[in-house]
Amino acid sequence: MARPIDADELDLLSIGAWILGTGGGGSPHASHLVARQFYEDGGRIELLDPDELADDDLVAVVSTMGAPLVFQERMTDAAFALKPVRIMEAYLGRRFRAVMTVEVGGCNAFQPLLVAAASGLPVVDADAMGRAYPEAQMQTFSIAGLQMVPHVVSDIRDNDVIIPTASGWREMERVRRKVCTEYGSVATTCQAPRSGAEVKRHAVLRSLSQAIALGREVRRARAAHEDPVMATVAAADGQRLFTGKVMDVQRRTTEGFLRGSLTLAGQDADAGAAFVIEFQNEFTIGRRDGTMIVTTPDLICVLDSISGEAIGTESLRYGQRVTVIALPSQPIHRTEEGLRHVGPRAFGHDIGFRSVFGEAGA
Amino acid sequence: MARPIDADELDLLSIGAWILGTGGGGSPHASHLVARQFYEDGGRIELLDPDELADDDLVAVVSTMGAPLVFQERMTDAAFALKPVRIMEAYLGRRFRAVMTVEVGGCNAFQPLLVAAASGLPVVDADAMGRAYPEAQMQTFSIAGLQMVPHVVSDIRDNDVIIPTASGWREMERVRRKVCTEYGSVATTCQAPRSGAEVKRHAVLRSLSQAIALGREVRRARAAHEDPVMATVAAADGQRLFTGKVMDVQRRTTEGFLRGSLTLAGQDADAGAAFVIEFQNEFTIGRRDGTMIVTTPDLICVLDSISGEAIGTESLRYGQRVTVIALPSQPIHRTEEGLRHVGPRAFGHDIGFRSVFGEAGA
Repeated sequence: MARPIDADELDLLSIGAWILGTGGGGSPHASHLVARQFYEDGGRIELLDPDELADDDLVAVVSTMGAPLVFQERMTDAAFALKPVRIMEAYLGRRFRAVMTVEVGGCNAFQPLLVAAASGLPVVDADAMGRAYPEAQMQTFSIAGLQMVPHVVSDIRDNDVIIPTASGWREMERVRRKVCTEYGSVATTCQAPRSGAEVKRHAVLRSLSQAIALGREVRRARAAHEDPVMATVAAADGQRLFTGKVMDVQRRTTEGFLRGSLTLAGQDADAGAAFVIEFQNEFTIGRRDGTMIVTTPDLICVLDSISGEAIGTESLRYGQRVTVIALPSQPIHRTEEGLRHVGPRAFGHDIGFRSVFGEAGA
Repeated sequence: MARPIDADELDLLSIGAWILGTGGGGSPHASHLVARQFYEDGGRIELLDPDELADDDLVAVVSTMGAPLVFQERMTDAAFALKPVRIMEAYLGRRFRAVMTVEVGGCNAFQPLLVAAASGLPVVDADAMGRAYPEAQMQTFSIAGLQMVPHVVSDIRDNDVIIPTASGWREMERVRRKVCTEYGSVATTCQAPRSGAEVKRHAVLRSLSQAIALGREVRRARAAHEDPVMATVAAADGQRLFTGKVMDVQRRTTEGFLRGSLTLAGQDADAGAAFVIEFQNEFTIGRRDGTMIVTTPDLICVLDSISGEAIGTESLRYGQRVTVIALPSQPIHRTEEGLRHVGPRAFGHDIGFRSVFGEAGA
């Protein structure tokens, strides 16, 4: 059923989406404020259950892409989110029935809400990652072998690119990444349109609702003076991996990504141990005292040990007290084809998938 | 009048276009061979006088873009030239009446002939530079303030980009240059479509015929045992600037361009003097013993002193005996607006235009 999103749920979505960002996806803060302002001005946004889509409905898949650090300086707005959608409609000669995000993790949880605010379209309760990932070919739609074009990339001014044909998802990703870098490392996209049937079959369903539920649990735990980190772990069937203090952060912005590593010194039960996490926008692998214990596609989340608030790879700094947790990945990411797209090797680590949830793979 | 191009004229166009390349535009050799093979297989290409265009005829403006050095390794073909034209037609929902080159200098003199070979379209006897220049905004259509979009860029495989909107010519140039680099530093384009009226008003008219005439004069001089360099100077109202031997070539491939400088030691009448020419794909400025004596938009051409054959910036090497000549530029390039687009400052040289033909400007 389509139902209006409550103003309160915007706050909860912001909390939950930032946790599911696994360090990347960019802080939802600025997009959250735009959505809240829209609500304060009397606007409302509809959330559409995927089951409500007709098989031949046309769904816009949208995102902001680029370097999360830039998102904090050049803030977004609804018109910027809508621009590539309108260009795609003109290119296709068809109108969209609804809009969905490519990833529920990070600021992109709000991207379809911004498009909805500017267009009146309902937001589909689904995404194509169930988290955040840095590259286009890491979507469930890519893993399922669906078409990657047409794909529109827009800048904040009057520059746009349509990719009508591409020899593969990775080739398309490389071209749009170069365009995005030229646009100042921030761009909005309208990705290959999906039919209602494709969304229902290949998207991660009801993931916005799950992010809202996660946010609700964090807020409940805070109000009840419980540990919000452990409340998140319990609510999402996750595991606590490590508690410690940030000792070192290596960070370099390269090829349109934020790459680097984070070193923690253990505290409490983990005193005396060290934990190192590597990232490419998102956290990809984690070692405890040199031993690999967790890899993508497990969700590796770094949370403030007190507030339970997620911390992005661009906001890590010396002295923060954090808890590392793992949350289970989407089943499609653990298939052989899924691991080819988002396993450790897809991020340049020559190791197999090692899950803290007892699974392994190529 | 539309008339068939003779097989013999293909050879003459190759000679003349390479001289008008002013060091850039890429050697016409490979494209020339493709066109000749088409003729040997019985094909014919029509040359259309611009006056034959109706005002509302739609003309495709085409090019190969990238690093000339790459053109020699990854050779072109008619299908590659045609691909962006077909994508543009699909995007516009209209068919082209004819095809023209963006620049008569270098390999792009043959680009519309390759499209013609694959499509049967006639080639308009005109271009948008009257020579070669490295960037899109240096076209007469840009100087005249015409629209720069839509613009299609294609690679040799199945990757294409449509630029439907751009905030300016330079912004469009920067984006397509990044795409081209990602495509391996060679791409074919179909640029903003032009009406017959726009071509007749703003293009450089009958420039293919002029290049053919120049080639004919070089060949006549060779057969008559005259000096083909001085025959070129006489035929094109040019000036001989310097005769010498290549002493040094500095060359770096950077940001999708070939930049550098050429140093000559004088011979014969110029013995004892030195001549230095800088280039960005094309030759841009020339100094004799440290004194600036020639700048773009004057055409600066470096020719083999014996054969009169042009030498590209990518083929310069120690020991070559060469003669530097200057040919007069197109009137539009010498206007205030023209100099803003193609004067020395447009190439990063903080000096005014200095012509060997007695003109100067900003």
